[in-house]
Amino acid sequence: STRKATLSCSQQPQTPPITATYPTPKRRPEYIPNNISDPSYVRIFDTTLRDGEQSPGASLTSKEKLDIARQLSKLGVDIIEAGFPASSKDDFEAVKAIAKEVGNAVDKDGYVPVICGLSRCNEKDIRTAWEAVKYAKRPRIHTFIATSAIHMEYKLRKTKAEVVEIARSMVKFARSLGCEDVEFSPEDAGRSDREFLYEILGEVIRAGATTLNIPDTVGITVPSEFGKLIADIKSNTPGIENVIISTHCQNDLGLSTANTVAGACAGARQLEVTINGIGERAGNASLEEVVMTLKCHGEVLFGGLYTGINPRHIYITSKMVEEYTGMHVQPHKAIVGANAFAHESGIHQDGMLKHKGTYEIIAPEDIGFERSNEAGIVLGKLSGRHALKKRLEELGYELDNEQLEGIFWRFKAVADQKKRVTDADLRALVSDEVFQPELVWKLQDLQVTCGTLGLSTATVKLIDANGREHVACSVGTGPVDSAYKAVDLIVKEPVTLLEYSMTAVTEGIDAIATTRVLIRGDNSRTTTHAHTGEAVHRTFSGIGAGMDIVVSSVKAYVGALNKMLGFKEKSRVNTAAERTAISS
Amino acid sequence: STRKATLSCSQQPQTPPITATYPTPKRRPEYIPNNISDPSYVRIFDTTLRDGEQSPGASLTSKEKLDIARQLSKLGVDIIEAGFPASSKDDFEAVKAIAKEVGNAVDKDGYVPVICGLSRCNEKDIRTAWEAVKYAKRPRIHTFIATSAIHMEYKLRKTKAEVVEIARSMVKFARSLGCEDVEFSPEDAGRSDREFLYEILGEVIRAGATTLNIPDTVGITVPSEFGKLIADIKSNTPGIENVIISTHCQNDLGLSTANTVAGACAGARQLEVTINGIGERAGNASLEEVVMTLKCHGEVLFGGLYTGINPRHIYITSKMVEEYTGMHVQPHKAIVGANAFAHESGIHQDGMLKHKGTYEIIAPEDIGFERSNEAGIVLGKLSGRHALKKRLEELGYELDNEQLEGIFWRFKAVADQKKRVTDADLRALVSDEVFQPELVWKLQDLQVTCGTLGLSTATVKLIDANGREHVACSVGTGPVDSAYKAVDLIVKEPVTLLEYSMTAVTEGIDAIATTRVLIRGDNSRTTTHAHTGEAVHRTFSGIGAGMDIVVSSVKAYVGALNKMLGFKEKSRVNTAAERTAISS
Repeated sequence: STRKATLSCSQQPQTPPITATYPTPKRRPEYIPNNISDPSYVRIFDTTLRDGEQSPGASLTSKEKLDIARQLSKLGVDIIEAGFPASSKDDFEAVKAIAKEVGNAVDKDGYVPVICGLSRCNEKDIRTAWEAVKYAKRPRIHTFIATSAIHMEYKLRKTKAEVVEIARSMVKFARSLGCEDVEFSPEDAGRSDREFLYEILGEVIRAGATTLNIPDTVGITVPSEFGKLIADIKSNTPGIENVIISTHCQNDLGLSTANTVAGACAGARQLEVTINGIGERAGNASLEEVVMTLKCHGEVLFGGLYTGINPRHIYITSKMVEEYTGMHVQPHKAIVGANAFAHESGIHQDGMLKHKGTYEIIAPEDIGFERSNEAGIVLGKLSGRHALKKRLEELGYELDNEQLEGIFWRFKAVADQKKRVTDADLRALVSDEVFQPELVWKLQDLQVTCGTLGLSTATVKLIDANGREHVACSVGTGPVDSAYKAVDLIVKEPVTLLEYSMTAVTEGIDAIATTRVLIRGDNSRTTTHAHTGEAVHRTFSGIGAGMDIVVSSVKAYVGALNKMLGFKEKSRVNTAAERTAISS
Repeated sequence: STRKATLSCSQQPQTPPITATYPTPKRRPEYIPNNISDPSYVRIFDTTLRDGEQSPGASLTSKEKLDIARQLSKLGVDIIEAGFPASSKDDFEAVKAIAKEVGNAVDKDGYVPVICGLSRCNEKDIRTAWEAVKYAKRPRIHTFIATSAIHMEYKLRKTKAEVVEIARSMVKFARSLGCEDVEFSPEDAGRSDREFLYEILGEVIRAGATTLNIPDTVGITVPSEFGKLIADIKSNTPGIENVIISTHCQNDLGLSTANTVAGACAGARQLEVTINGIGERAGNASLEEVVMTLKCHGEVLFGGLYTGINPRHIYITSKMVEEYTGMHVQPHKAIVGANAFAHESGIHQDGMLKHKGTYEIIAPEDIGFERSNEAGIVLGKLSGRHALKKRLEELGYELDNEQLEGIFWRFKAVADQKKRVTDADLRALVSDEVFQPELVWKLQDLQVTCGTLGLSTATVKLIDANGREHVACSVGTGPVDSAYKAVDLIVKEPVTLLEYSMTAVTEGIDAIATTRVLIRGDNSRTTTHAHTGEAVHRTFSGIGAGMDIVVSSVKAYVGALNKMLGFKEKSRVNTAAERTAISS
C-alpha cells in the first residue's frame, strides 16, 4: 500500500553503507499491462525517442531512432516510447519500423520491450499511433490532455466536464481499436486541482486505461510535494489498485531525479526518463541517475525497489544518444559525464588512495565505462582486423563486416600517423563511420588557405548520388565559412547554421577531432509539437571526425545536409484516421 | 526549531501556484558568525573558487579568481570560499588579493562578503589560511577532518579519539590566531557514525567553531536521508543552538540540489554551492538551482526561507565561470543551459501560447538572461562607442576605458563583415578581450594551407614580452596541429593537449567561433589536493574567438600557454607557519 511504501522509504539506518551494496539481480516479472506481480518491481519507460527528440536540435532520422531503440532494448528498458506518430510521416515510419523489429525481438528470458506511441486526445492521433505500434508484440498507446486550470483555460479553451469527456471517450476509443495497453497522462498534473485529478483519472480507469502517468510538465515541484501528489492519487482515485501509476518529471529546477525517486517511494511503479536527461528546456529525469539511485538505495532505503535495467549498457547508450542528437553532456554530469569517475587518475598517479571506497560509490565498470590501462594504449600500427574487432566488441560496438572493414582502413591510416590509438580514437572512428546518415552528397576533395590575412579561400569537390563530380570554390571569413559557402554553391539548399562545435576526443595535438554542426533548412521541414500542437521547424545535426578540423567540419556539414535531404517532409499519414473527423 | 522547520516544509497546499510567486525581497540580516537574527534567512556559501576549481582542468589564475570573486559579490553571496591557501603559492596570493579587495568593498547597505580560506586540520594550513584571509573585513577559516570509519581507517590511520582531539585543538588554534569565524567540516559526514558525529561536533563547538558544515562527500545520500542527518545533528549535538549548520552536497547521483534543499528544510542555514554546479567528479549542488528553488518555493512550501542572492546576476556569473574554467554547461542544464528558456522561440514563431505561464515558471529576465528582440539585432556598422558601452552594460559587463576601446575596434571589424552583430557576438568579443591571462606571447601573424591532400603547413609569427618577433613554420596532420607545432618551435614549453573544443556562439555560418583548449605542462606545475593531500598536476585552459577557426585555435593555445607561464610554481608560503611543525 502507499502508506507502507512511503514509510519504508524513510526508515533509514543510522549509518549508511560505505559503498553501494547492489542487491542480487532478480527476475523481471512477466509483463501484464495493468499489473506487476512483484510489488517491488519498478518499470523503466524511456522517452528519449519522443520527449528527448523534442529538444531543440535533437532531431533523429528513422535509422538513428532504430539504432537507439535496439540499444534501449539491450539496456533492458520495459517500455520504449518510440515517437509521436501523428507528428510527421517520418515519425510514423520510425515508430512502425521499431515496432516491427525491436518490438518483436524476444530474448531468451522472454523479455521484449513494449513499444509505445504518443497521441493527443483525438481519434486521428490515436488511430495513427495504433497503425504504427500495432506491429509490436506488446503495443501501447499513450494519450494525454491537459488538466491544469491555466492549460484548460488558455490552451484548450475547454471546461472541466469537456476535458473529462474527451479523455474518457478517447481512452475507450484506443481500447476499441484492439489496443490492450493504454496509458493516459493528465498534462501539467503538477499544477492541477487534486479533486479534479482524482475524478478524471477514475473516469479513464473505468474507460480502460492501464497506466496513469503523472507529469510535472513545467518542472516546478519539489520531492516532498511530488511524492505527496503520487500518494494522494494512490489513496483517492477510484479503481487505482487496478492500474500502474507512472511519473514524468521535467528538470527546470534541477530536481527531476529526486522527484522521480520520491514518486517511486510513494507508489509509482513506472518511471519515465530519458538517456542523459535530454528533453525540452532543462530536460527530463535521466535514466542513469534514477536507475543508479534505485540500484544503490533500493534494497536498504526504499524497501526493496528494483528495476530490470542492466547498467553495464548505460555508458555506451549515453554516448550513442550524445552522438546522434548532438546534445552535449557536460563533464560534471552525474554517472555519465567525462569527469564522473575522474578521481581515478589520482589512483594511478600517486597510489594515494588506500581504498577505492573512500571516494567511489559506483565502480565505472558497473555502467560499462572501462578503466583504461595506464598508457591508454590498446592498439597500434601492427594490430589486425581481429584485434580491432575484439576491442570494439569490448567497448560495446557490434558491427557488421562492411562497417568493420571501413573502420579498419581508417584505423590503419590513423595508426600510421599516431603512435598510440586509444579507445577514444576508436570511438571517434566508429561514430564517424557508423553513426552517419545515408549518403546523398559525399566529400571527395578539399583544399583551403587561411590565416590572419583574412582572405580564406576553399575549393571543394563533392560527388552526388549518381557519382557525378561537382567542383566549386569560394572565399569567406574563415576556412570553414569559405568551405561551407563552396558546398552551398553545389548543393543549393538554403540553410541556417545554428550551432557549430568541435571536441578533440583524444589526448595530444594530433588527436582526432569530432565536429558537430546543427542546421535548419530554410525550406520548411516541420513536425508537430506534441504539447502545443504547433508546427516546429526541424533541425539537423551532422558529425565528422578527422585529424584536419577543416576537413572534419566539411564532413559534418555535408552529413547534416544529407540528414536533412533524407528527411521526409511533414505530410499527413494516409490511414483510416485521415478520413475521420477529429473527435474533439 | 528543527521540528517546526521540517513540518513547515511538508505543509503543501492542495494545488501549487501557477507560476513562481516570489516573496518581496527582505533585508539581509546583519552578519554575526554564529547567529542569524532572522531564523528564515539562509546564507549562501559559494565554493566555486575552491571546490569548483578542483575540477579536472578548471585551474584559475589569480586574476581570474579575483574577477569571479567580484562577480560573486555582485550576486550577493554571503560567504566566498576563495581557495585553499596552503595548496600553492598562487592559491595563497589569490585568496589574499580577494580578501584585500572584495573582502573590503562594503556596499551602501553594509553588505560585504565573508572571505573564507580552506585548511586541513594542522597548524601550518590554518596559519597559512589566516595569513591570507585576515585582510578581509569578515575573515573565516574553514578546517576539516574526515570522520567516517573508512576514511579514518584507510586515509588518516587514526582512532576516533585522535580525530576528536585534532579537530578540537585545531579549531581552538584557529580561534587563538584572532579569527572569530571558524567553520568545521567532518568530511564524509554522510557515511559517518551518528553518535560519533554528535560527539566531535559538540567538542568543536566548545572549542569555538561558529559554523558546522555537513558534507555528503561522495554524493551517496538521498533527500529524505540527508534531511534526517541534518535534523538528527540539530536535535542531538550539545551546544548546536549557538552555531550555524551548513550543507555541502556532491552530485554523484544527481541529487545534490534536492539534498541541499532538504538540508535547509531540516534546519541548515548555510548552503555550500558552486556556480554551474562544477566540482570534482559530478560536481556540487549548483547555486542557481538551489537559489531559484528557494525563490520559487521558500515562501509557500518552506515556511518563509529566503536568501540574499540577487538572481539577476546569475546568468552573467554562469557565463564568466564557464569561460574561465572551460567547464562547459550542457544545453539542458537547469536555469542556465542554452535551452533552459528555449520554449521562447515557440512564442515568437507562432504566437501559439496564449499565456506564458503555461510552460514558463521562471522568466528569463529574472536571472539576467535578456530576451532578444525578434531579429536579435542590437548593434550595426554605424553604432558608436556610446551605444556599444550601453549595450555591454545592459548585458552586465562593466569595462574600463581601455577594455572598451579594444572591444570597440574589434566590434567595428566584425560589423564590417556581418550585417547583424548580436548579443552573443558581443559576449564572445568580451570573453576574448577581457577574459584573457596576462600576455607573455602574442600572436601576430598566421598563414595556413590544408585539405584532403593531408599536407597541412602553417607559419606563425609570435611577439614575445620584449616585443621581439619570432617566426616558425611546421607541417602537421591538420591546420591546428601544424600551427601548434610551429608555436611549440618558438615557445619551447613541453605540454600535452588534453582537450580541444569549439563553439560557434552565434547564428550563421559567418559566426564568431570560440575555441577552448586545455593543456598540461609536462614540466610539473602542481597544487595540493584538499582532501587527499596529494600533488595534482595543474591544467590550464585558454580561449580564443574569431571568424577564422584556425586563428582562434592558435589564440586559444597561446592563451593557455600564457596562463601556464604566468602561474607560479608550487612553493611553500613563507609565513610563520613555515617554521611550525604540523600539529597532527
